[in-house]
Amino acid sequence: MKLYSYFRSSASYRVRIALELKGLPYDYVPVHLLKDGGQQLLPEFRAVNPDGLVPALVLDDGQVLQQSVAMIEYLDEVHPEPKLLPGNALDRAYVRGLALEVACEIHPLNNLRVLKYIKRTLGVADEAKDAWYRHWIELGFAAFEANLERQGKAGRFCFGDTPTLADICLVPQVFNAQRFNIDVSRYPTIARIQEACMELPAFRKAQPKEQPDAE
Amino acid sequence: MKLYSYFRSSASYRVRIALELKGLPYDYVPVHLLKDGGQQLLPEFRAVNPDGLVPALVLDDGQVLQQSVAMIEYLDEVHPEPKLLPGNALDRAYVRGLALEVACEIHPLNNLRVLKYIKRTLGVADEAKDAWYRHWIELGFAAFEANLERQGKAGRFCFGDTPTLADICLVPQVFNAQRFNIDVSRYPTIARIQEACMELPAFRKAQPKEQPDAE
Repeated sequence: MKLYSYFRSSASYRVRIALELKGLPYDYVPVHLLKDGGQQLLPEFRAVNPDGLVPALVLDDGQVLQQSVAMIEYLDEVHPEPKLLPGNALDRAYVRGLALEVACEIHPLNNLRVLKYIKRTLGVADEAKDAWYRHWIELGFAAFEANLERQGKAGRFCFGDTPTLADICLVPQVFNAQRFNIDVSRYPTIARIQEACMELPAFRKAQPKEQPDAE
Repeated sequence: MKLYSYFRSSASYRVRIALELKGLPYDYVPVHLLKDGGQQLLPEFRAVNPDGLVPALVLDDGQVLQQSVAMIEYLDEVHPEPKLLPGNALDRAYVRGLALEVACEIHPLNNLRVLKYIKRTLGVADEAKDAWYRHWIELGFAAFEANLERQGKAGRFCFGDTPTLADICLVPQVFNAQRFNIDVSRYPTIARIQEACMELPAFRKAQPKEQPDAE
């Protein structure tokens, strides 16, 4: 497999964690989101993923998968051990719900192309842009934390004592929060789970600074 | 089951389509996103869904599911006929990828709470706000259309000749596009699939104007 990735892209980080947890080898193809006006927009990359978004996962037969959560569901179906979703439907809905709280309510608003639009097209100053970035993380983390507490299904990780899709989406988002100086200790369960995840080699190996294109 | 819904919420519309396709009866509980400063933010609703987001799906035993795509995956697992995801992993990844192109790349940017922030906090004028709304739909639909063509898996619907999660996410987004005067005929495959979906009673019954809280 080949993963088109940018070290700091949190959607790429999600897929890297899943690949590491499954122990699946892959070739890392860096796509620099800031160089050349955004390498993800160049024809070479668009030939792989017409959306111009990273990550893109290319299977050995050349098939291209899009959207990080869809990639992880695929990897979990085709390489079922260790499982990244719980064994029953209700628990799976809980884990997917948490994962999508990050993937649909926080991350899309803080995407690079969105921040560019806010700055360049809407003419928003850097300070207000950074406040926007933090706003969606804080709102989302407050909801995520409330759900973890309310459902009472968290153990060492978001669901029980093994990492799932929820942790895979949460951890890269915590990295983003920390880059923007959000005090994650205000969300004690999230902070605790983050620490537990970072004790696992898969989460550490997949983190931005360990990637070949890290700066 | 009970669905907390707002007639115009496209995430609610997705779940309504899935419930109708499965033939599952449910109670409709309207949550008005504009009245009372947003009824989704009132303590009564937050007791159901602490996120303050519609839809929320309450199962007969009182369990609450969050995030529309997670709800639809749940319904598809527990009530498998008619299936909303294809039979093999690669095709499921394709369908989920399309669904998430809407759910992660378009819809989150055009959420009511996001539009409010842009207007009130960033002080963006209505005209620029509407251009923002259209920008993300146009970008997303161009990518969606390109993927439909490239993959060649569309039949009458996004995947083959029965509706899937991809159509369920696409159709409400087309409704939003039309409300903002986007000419959907510029995306011929999307336009064709939209028409095919609207021939099905499930998509018609679930549409905004058929809901008890429609205005």
